[in-house]
Amino acid sequence: MTNFDYYSPTRFVFGKDTEAKTGELVKKAGARKTLIVFGSGSAEKSGLLQRMRTSLQDAGIRSIDFGGIRPNPKSGPVYKGIEICKKENIDFVLAVGGGSVIDSAKAIAMGAVDDGDFWDFHAHTRMPQKALPIGVVLTIPAAGSEGSGNSVITQDKTLLKRSATGECLRPRFSILNPELTYTLPNYQTACGIADMMSHIFERYFTNEPGVDLTDRMCEGVLKTIISAAPQAIAKPDNYEARATLMWAGTIAHINLLGLGRIEDWSSHAFEHELSALYDVTHGAGLAIVFPAWLRYQLHHHNPQKIAQFATRVFDIPTSGSAENIGEKGIAALSAFWTSLGLPFKLKQIKGFEEADIPLMTQKIKMTRPNELGNYNPLNYTDIETVYRSML
Amino acid sequence: MTNFDYYSPTRFVFGKDTEAKTGELVKKAGARKTLIVFGSGSAEKSGLLQRMRTSLQDAGIRSIDFGGIRPNPKSGPVYKGIEICKKENIDFVLAVGGGSVIDSAKAIAMGAVDDGDFWDFHAHTRMPQKALPIGVVLTIPAAGSEGSGNSVITQDKTLLKRSATGECLRPRFSILNPELTYTLPNYQTACGIADMMSHIFERYFTNEPGVDLTDRMCEGVLKTIISAAPQAIAKPDNYEARATLMWAGTIAHINLLGLGRIEDWSSHAFEHELSALYDVTHGAGLAIVFPAWLRYQLHHHNPQKIAQFATRVFDIPTSGSAENIGEKGIAALSAFWTSLGLPFKLKQIKGFEEADIPLMTQKIKMTRPNELGNYNPLNYTDIETVYRSML
Repeated sequence: MTNFDYYSPTRFVFGKDTEAKTGELVKKAGARKTLIVFGSGSAEKSGLLQRMRTSLQDAGIRSIDFGGIRPNPKSGPVYKGIEICKKENIDFVLAVGGGSVIDSAKAIAMGAVDDGDFWDFHAHTRMPQKALPIGVVLTIPAAGSEGSGNSVITQDKTLLKRSATGECLRPRFSILNPELTYTLPNYQTACGIADMMSHIFERYFTNEPGVDLTDRMCEGVLKTIISAAPQAIAKPDNYEARATLMWAGTIAHINLLGLGRIEDWSSHAFEHELSALYDVTHGAGLAIVFPAWLRYQLHHHNPQKIAQFATRVFDIPTSGSAENIGEKGIAALSAFWTSLGLPFKLKQIKGFEEADIPLMTQKIKMTRPNELGNYNPLNYTDIETVYRSML
Repeated sequence: MTNFDYYSPTRFVFGKDTEAKTGELVKKAGARKTLIVFGSGSAEKSGLLQRMRTSLQDAGIRSIDFGGIRPNPKSGPVYKGIEICKKENIDFVLAVGGGSVIDSAKAIAMGAVDDGDFWDFHAHTRMPQKALPIGVVLTIPAAGSEGSGNSVITQDKTLLKRSATGECLRPRFSILNPELTYTLPNYQTACGIADMMSHIFERYFTNEPGVDLTDRMCEGVLKTIISAAPQAIAKPDNYEARATLMWAGTIAHINLLGLGRIEDWSSHAFEHELSALYDVTHGAGLAIVFPAWLRYQLHHHNPQKIAQFATRVFDIPTSGSAENIGEKGIAALSAFWTSLGLPFKLKQIKGFEEADIPLMTQKIKMTRPNELGNYNPLNYTDIETVYRSML
C-alpha cells in the first residue's frame, strides 16, 4: 500500500427533496450572489431551475442564470462564465446538472479569481490554488465530479480534452436526489453506469501489493452497480435502484477506492480523444475502450489481477488459466454493457474514421511524451494497437 | 435507503513516516500553542512523543504535555485538561494515542471553549457546537475516533459511559502510520480488530431496504480484516497487514458504511456497561457481547440478514435454513475472535459477578427509557436475557 493523503471535505446531502436545502447551504457558505450554471434545457423544463432560483431567493441570495453548457464541455462558455463572474461580483458558483455542467462550473470558479488564462490549469502549466466556492445539484450520476477535485474541459481551437485538479475544486456541498434522475433517457443512464464503473476500473487495475481492502470495496461497489443497473433501466422511477446508482457514482470517484494504490487512467486517455473528436458520450466511449484495453493487458501483464476481477465481480468459476478466466470476465463485462444498449466497437460511433487513429494516438502522446498508464505502460505502437482492436 | 447528510472533512495522512508532518499540519490549522494529550507511557518510551514535540517546535508552535490518559477514559482528567487549556491559552489539541486519548482530547477541546460542564454534551442535555481544533497521531487502530465526530467518556462518580457527538469533534487531520502499531501487544491488536468489526456490524444489521451498496462494502471490509488479522498477530511488523487493519479501522467508523441505513448500536450499549464496571478492554467486551446479541436476534428477527452475513463474509454454504446458515456464521465469528485470543464469556472478565446483570440492565435503561436498538428493539427483559446468554 502506498502512502496517501485523503481529504474529501464536500458535504453530501442525499435523498428525496434534498434540493430544497440549496439556498440554505449556499448561505451557509457565506455567499451573496450566485452564478447558476446549467445545461441545455431539461433543468428548466422540469422546473428544477425555478425551484433553485426560489430557494436561493428565499435565503436572501441573488442569482444570475448561465445556461447552455453542452456535453463534452468546451472552453468557450467557460471564458464567458468567468467574464460574468468578474463583472457581476459573483461569489458562489452553483452547478445544476451532470459532469459537463459541474466541470464547467469548476473551471469558471477558478477563472473568476485568476488574472491569467484558466486553460493553464487544464494544460498543467499552473496548479489551481484558489476558486470561488462551488455547490452542486446533481441530475446525472456518472462523472463523479460532484465529489472530486477535477474538471475536464475541451479547448475549442485544439480539441484537446484535459483535466485540471486541485483541492479548491472540491464542491462545498453536493445535493443528490435520486428522484431527479427518473427522467434520464435509458441511454444516458447506461452511459453513466459505464462511466462510474470505469472510474473504479482505472483504480482497481494496479500492481501495488497489499491493497485487498480497496480491491474488495471496489468489487462490492461494482457488483451492486451491475445488480441495480437493469432495475433502473427497466423501471426508471425505481427509487432504490436510482439511489444505489447515484451514490455509487459518487463513491466511485471521491478517490476512496484509489487510496494506497497507483492508478492507471489509460482508458480515460483513449476515450478523451474519441469524445473530443466525435462528440460521443464519455460513458459510451469508455464502453468501447475499456474491454479492449483490458483484453490487451490480459495477454501482456498480470492476468491474475484480471482473473480476480472476473471471479469476484462476475462470479466466473476459478477453474482454468488466469487468461481463460480473465477472458470470460471481459466477455461478461462487454455483454453487460451491450445489454444496457451501449456500443462496443468504434464503427458504432457516428463520424468515426479508421484514418483518425494515428491522429488520436498522436494527441495522447502530446501530453504523455513517454508512456501511457501505470498497470502496464503503453508506448506509441501499443496505443495504436489497442485503438485498432476496437475496430 | 434513507436520506442522509455525509460530511467527513478530516484530512487523513496515511503511511510510513507521516508523523513527521505533524508540526506543519498543526501550523496550517492556524495554531500557536498546543496541548499534547497522550496515555500512560508507551508514546514517551518509544520516542514518538519527543518527535512530536520537536515537530511542533520546528513549526514554531509551543506545546504543553498532558499525559496519563487511561483506557476507558474518565471525566477527571478531562476536567484537568480543560483547566490547563483555559489557563494556558491553548488553541489546538493534539491527541497522540488510541481511542481513549482521542476521546479525552475531544472532550477537552469542547470544554476549553465552554463555560458550563462538558459532561452536559455526553449526557445529551446540550449539543456540542464548538471546540478547539483537534489533530490526531494514531497509535492503536480500533475505536475509529480519528475519523469520527464522537467522544466516549465515563463519568467518575456514576460510572456512566456515554458518547457525545458533533461535527466540531471531527479532527482537522489524522496521521496514520502503520509502523507505529508494530509494538502493540497481540491482545490489544485483537481487541482493536473486534472493535472495528463491531463498528461495521452495528451498521450492517438494519431493516432498511435497498442498502446492498453499503452491505457489500461492509462485507468487503470485514473479509479483508479477517484475512489481515492473523498476519498481523503472527508477524507484528507485517506492514501490509498493519496498514490494512489501520485503514479498515478508520473506514469502519467514518460512517461511510452506515449511510442510508438505520443503525443499531445495541451491542455497544451492552459493552459500555461491562467496561464501565470492570474496566475490560472495549474490544474484548464486544467479542463477548456481539455473538450473543446476534444469536438472540437470529431466533427473533430477520434471520435472512444474518444468513447473508454468514455466506458473504464467512463463505458459509447457502444450503439449509437461514437460522442454520446464520448459526454457522455466528460460530465462525466466535471461532475467529477466540483464535485471536479474545474472550467469549462474561466469566472470563476479571471481577465479573452474575449479580451485576440487573444493575447493568438498569444502567442501560437510564438513558434508553423505551427500547434498545433498531434492528429488533430490546426491552428490559430481552436485555437481561441477552446478558445471561453470555454467562
